[in-house]
Amino acid sequence: MQTLNVDLGDRSYPIYIGNNLLTQADLLRPHIVGKQVMIVSNTTVAPLYLAQLKATLGDQYQVAEVILPDGEQYKTLEYVNHIFDGLLKNRFNRTCTLIALGGGVIGDMTGFAASAYQRGVSFIQIPTTLLSQVDSSVGGKTGVNHPLGKNMIGAFWQPKAVLADTQVLKTLPERELAAGIAEVIKYGLICDPEFFQWLNINMPALLNQNDNTLAEAVYRSCLNKASVVAEDETETGVRATLNLGHTFGHAIETEQGYGKWLHGEAVATGMLMAAELSQREGWLSAEDVKAVRDILISANLPIVAPSDMSAQAFLQHMAVDKKVLDGSLRLVLLHKIGQAVITNQFNQDNLMKTLNSGVQLGQI
Amino acid sequence: MQTLNVDLGDRSYPIYIGNNLLTQADLLRPHIVGKQVMIVSNTTVAPLYLAQLKATLGDQYQVAEVILPDGEQYKTLEYVNHIFDGLLKNRFNRTCTLIALGGGVIGDMTGFAASAYQRGVSFIQIPTTLLSQVDSSVGGKTGVNHPLGKNMIGAFWQPKAVLADTQVLKTLPERELAAGIAEVIKYGLICDPEFFQWLNINMPALLNQNDNTLAEAVYRSCLNKASVVAEDETETGVRATLNLGHTFGHAIETEQGYGKWLHGEAVATGMLMAAELSQREGWLSAEDVKAVRDILISANLPIVAPSDMSAQAFLQHMAVDKKVLDGSLRLVLLHKIGQAVITNQFNQDNLMKTLNSGVQLGQI
Repeated sequence: MQTLNVDLGDRSYPIYIGNNLLTQADLLRPHIVGKQVMIVSNTTVAPLYLAQLKATLGDQYQVAEVILPDGEQYKTLEYVNHIFDGLLKNRFNRTCTLIALGGGVIGDMTGFAASAYQRGVSFIQIPTTLLSQVDSSVGGKTGVNHPLGKNMIGAFWQPKAVLADTQVLKTLPERELAAGIAEVIKYGLICDPEFFQWLNINMPALLNQNDNTLAEAVYRSCLNKASVVAEDETETGVRATLNLGHTFGHAIETEQGYGKWLHGEAVATGMLMAAELSQREGWLSAEDVKAVRDILISANLPIVAPSDMSAQAFLQHMAVDKKVLDGSLRLVLLHKIGQAVITNQFNQDNLMKTLNSGVQLGQI
Repeated sequence: MQTLNVDLGDRSYPIYIGNNLLTQADLLRPHIVGKQVMIVSNTTVAPLYLAQLKATLGDQYQVAEVILPDGEQYKTLEYVNHIFDGLLKNRFNRTCTLIALGGGVIGDMTGFAASAYQRGVSFIQIPTTLLSQVDSSVGGKTGVNHPLGKNMIGAFWQPKAVLADTQVLKTLPERELAAGIAEVIKYGLICDPEFFQWLNINMPALLNQNDNTLAEAVYRSCLNKASVVAEDETETGVRATLNLGHTFGHAIETEQGYGKWLHGEAVATGMLMAAELSQREGWLSAEDVKAVRDILISANLPIVAPSDMSAQAFLQHMAVDKKVLDGSLRLVLLHKIGQAVITNQFNQDNLMKTLNSGVQLGQI
C-alpha cells in the first residue's frame, strides 16, 4: 500500500492506494468523526461492496445508508436532498461522518451533502471507479449539476481520508475503465511527459487491470493532482489546467444529456480537440497530435464529437461553462505534451474549425 | 454613520450602520466583485427598495434580480434553486456578486446560494428588518430549512459587507419590529448586562423608531455578536450561547409550521423558558425572571408557548435540533442576567416543568 498526503494545511488528508483496502478497519476507523456513520452509495455499487464496508466498520457505530440510483443524470439538488432526508430521519447530529462508496457522482454528491448538512460535517471517500480514484478523490470539489450547466452548484469541501482500493476496479465495466484512463492520460498531457511515455508502454497492462500497474497509475495521477491542488485550492490559477478537455467535454455531455457519454469519454474527445486547436495555434506538431490520438485509441476511448453536434451547439454550452471568466472564453490548451496553459489568446477561426471537427470526422 | 469591522482574518468585513445608507454608492460599490450583480429580494421588500438600490448601483454593472415570495415557509432548497436558475439564465460567471435585499430569510438564502453557486461567489447583505440587522448580518451562517428541521442545510459563508440602513426599518410592521427587539434583548441577557439596563430605559424610544436609539441598538447588538463570532466562527464553543431561547423557539416554529410565529417571537418565548429553567436550577432569582418577562412584555413580545403544544411535542423537535451534541441535549441557560452558559447539566424534571409552562400559562 502507498500513502499520499494531500497538503492543505489544517484540511490535509491521506489517500491510501492499494489492494483490498476495503477490508482494513485500521485504515478507516481513525478517520471517522463521531459515532454516526452514513454510507452513501448507488444501486450498482451497493450490492457489490456495501456489506463488506459495513463488516469493516463493525458494530461500534450507528450505521445508516442512502442508496441512490446510478448515473450522472441523478447528480442533482433533488437527489442530494435524499441524503439530507436520510440524515434527518436517522437523527444524525453535527458530529457525524458520511462515507461516499461509489464513483465520481456519488463522491461529488456525498461531499456536497457533507459540506451543507448542518453547515458542514466530515466525510470519507471510497472511490470505486478508476476515474474517481484519480480525479474526484483529490481536491475537494463537490457538487451537482443544474439543467443549465454541469457542476454549477457545489462547495470546496475536503474529505478526512480517501481509500483507493484497486481490488474494486476488477468489477468495473470496460467502458468505465477506459473513461478513467482518459483522466490518467490527462495528467501526462498537462504536466508529466514521462508519465505520458510510461502510459504508452503500460497501456496493455493497465487495460488488463494488472494490480501494480493500476496502483502506479492511480498513485502518479493523484500525486500530480495533489501537487496542483496544493498550489491553488480554489482554482484561481494553475488548478484550471486540470480542466484540459473539460470545456469541450462538458459541452458534449450537456448537449447529449447527462449520462449518455461517460464523463471520461467526453473529456477524451475534448482533450483531442484541445490538442487540435493547439496544433492550429502552432504549438503542437502533427506528430504530437497523432500521439494524443493514438494513446486515446489504444485506451478504447472516443476521439470524435457526436456527428450531429454543431459548432453552434458547442459555443452555446461553452458560454455558460464556469471556466468562462468575465465573458471572455478561456481554454486549457497545450504548449507541448506535458505542458498545459490557460489562455484566451487563440484565433477564433481555429476554434471554429476545431468545433466543426466532429462533423469532419476528426480530420484537421 | 458607524462602521463595525467583523474580524475574521481574510474573511473580515465591515458593517455600516446609519440612516439612508441605501442611497450611498460609495459605500456599496467598493465591495462589489466583478461586473455582474444579482439582487435577491422578496415580493414585500422589492416594491419598496429595489428601484432605489438599482439607482444607487448605477449602470456600470449587468444587474439582474430574483424576487422570491415572502416568508420563512419559502426558505427551502427548492427556492434557493430559483436563485441558481436566475444566475444561470443570465449567464453569471464565477466573478459576480449577489446582494441580499430583505430580512433574515432572504439573507440566509442568498448567502447559501452565493456559497454554492459555482462553488462560491461574493455577496453583500442589505438587511431590511431589525432582526436581520442585529442577527443574521453578523457571522456568516447561511442556509435553508428542511421539513424535518430548521436551518439543517447551509454553509458558513461571510459577506463582503453589510449595510444596515435604519431608514428602511421605518416601513417595518410593528410585529416584525418587536421580533427584532427580541434578538436585541438576547445580547443583553447573554453577555451585556449594561445593555439590558439601557434597553429597559430606552424601550419606548426603540418602539417609536427613534433614529439614534435604533442605530445604537443595532450597533451594540452587532458589536456583541461580532465579538462572539470572532472568537468561535464555526460554533464549536462560545458561539452557541447566541442560541439562547432558540432550541425552545425552533421547536415552537417547527410545530406550528414555518411562518406562523415570527422567528423573534419564538425566540422571545424560548428565552423566557430558558430563564424559567435557569430559575428552577437555582441560578436566576424570581426577580431576574420577572425582569426578563417584563422587558419582553414591554416590547410587545409573546411570553407563552402555544397552549396546545405538549412537552412531548417540544422534546420531539428538540431531539433533532442541531444543538444536540452526540445524543445529549445541551441548552443555553443563564447563570445570571448577562451571563449565558451552555450545559447539559440540568434536572430533567425541571426541564419537563418548563416545557409544560405553555399549558400552565407561563406560571412556574
